[in-house]
Amino acid sequence: MRSAEELRALVEDALTELALHEDLAGLDEALRYSVEGGGKRIRPVLCVAVGEALGGEAEQLLPAACAVELVHSFSLVHDDLPALDDDAVRRGRASTWSHYGEAVGILAGDALLAEAFRLAASYPTTAVVRELADATLGMIGGQYLDVTASATDLASLNRLKTGRLFEAAVRCAVVACGAEIQAPWRAFAQELGALFQLVDDLLDGDGTVLAYGADETRRRADEAAERAAAALSELEVDSTVLRGLVESLATRTA
Amino acid sequence: MRSAEELRALVEDALTELALHEDLAGLDEALRYSVEGGGKRIRPVLCVAVGEALGGEAEQLLPAACAVELVHSFSLVHDDLPALDDDAVRRGRASTWSHYGEAVGILAGDALLAEAFRLAASYPTTAVVRELADATLGMIGGQYLDVTASATDLASLNRLKTGRLFEAAVRCAVVACGAEIQAPWRAFAQELGALFQLVDDLLDGDGTVLAYGADETRRRADEAAERAAAALSELEVDSTVLRGLVESLATRTA
Repeated sequence: MRSAEELRALVEDALTELALHEDLAGLDEALRYSVEGGGKRIRPVLCVAVGEALGGEAEQLLPAACAVELVHSFSLVHDDLPALDDDAVRRGRASTWSHYGEAVGILAGDALLAEAFRLAASYPTTAVVRELADATLGMIGGQYLDVTASATDLASLNRLKTGRLFEAAVRCAVVACGAEIQAPWRAFAQELGALFQLVDDLLDGDGTVLAYGADETRRRADEAAERAAAALSELEVDSTVLRGLVESLATRTA
Repeated sequence: MRSAEELRALVEDALTELALHEDLAGLDEALRYSVEGGGKRIRPVLCVAVGEALGGEAEQLLPAACAVELVHSFSLVHDDLPALDDDAVRRGRASTWSHYGEAVGILAGDALLAEAFRLAASYPTTAVVRELADATLGMIGGQYLDVTASATDLASLNRLKTGRLFEAAVRCAVVACGAEIQAPWRAFAQELGALFQLVDDLLDGDGTVLAYGADETRRRADEAAERAAAALSELEVDSTVLRGLVESLATRTA
């Protein structure tokens, strides 16, 4: 079983070497630009780690892991567009649309999403595609609630916008290994998504921090981390690396 | 075997009754708006007709047919955006972005694409998803060549922008029926895509008409129709309805 850092290196290599569709012509440059740029690769590492915990080979999990990361990239590329969050900068450099123009930004996001499904369809089962489509639609629904300011509560919004793709990272790995998504896996995935968002809010001083204060947010994050660890205890798998991921998500400072 | 008109009614009903993802919340209205509005449903009808020619039941083909139509809708919704073709009107009414705003236009297109893959993943095989992803990426690549004016020739551009999705309509039906995509099916699909685009150019007076004149465009369209019919003759299927579709594509006036 490999460490999280080894898994991260594997994921990074797989993303760099991704064989994009030949018909994309020059658009592939904008896709690579969007996927590069120093993301933490938390979701794909989580995906591969879940697969390894289930006894799968990391290499077999990489298409699913990359698919989840491409959906994440797609969402960032489109969310940054002027009509949505209007962010010209992402991770310290020009966002895709501000580097390549808005038309290419839209098309690059579209292509990232289609590439994600192409990767997800490389398994013998359609289950990976179904999990990914489910998560993507939830995420888009969350973004819709956000831009139209029509969410009923912050937790539900976060569960859609952030949680769904964390859940997909776990669920895609489980089904890619041919296993059933047991209740503890579902719980683990949900708690991890909540944990990530709560710590994000702590680091950015917004969301839950604005609504309930930093102490309450920290308390909720710690509870989510505890529940994630408890869910792992219910699973008969080697969860060493996954426990480390929970710990690093709970204590991250960036 | 049902007539093209009966198939069109089936497709229309299936699109109307499409169960969109529950997490889309209020965004579903923009998706329905985008899919409604009087399209000719040529691609999904073609998909179902190919399936029936192969001995499949129309009902079994409907998810694939609807998936192809959703990808078509996605492409229209995004192509109409201000950063791309900037069309405020589509089929005589406000385009999706001009009706719901640009942010919702982007998100609705994204959701249509994800819904398409969700439908395509409802088959026991991943082949439908793979065909659809392939076609979608080719189509996006074509749109990129178009907006950046970097296509080397008109025929290759059309083959990507229009042809790929016609090919997907045929190919998805074949693989959904568990059949192999034999060479005549590939040829039939390609010729049909070319035929559609050439007649489009004749009706709009652009593209091939501008480059080579109306007579030459008509000649090419008739040749494509002949080759499509010839391809059908090589297949041991009941191609009555498909021959009718070729004929109606060749002689359409709208």
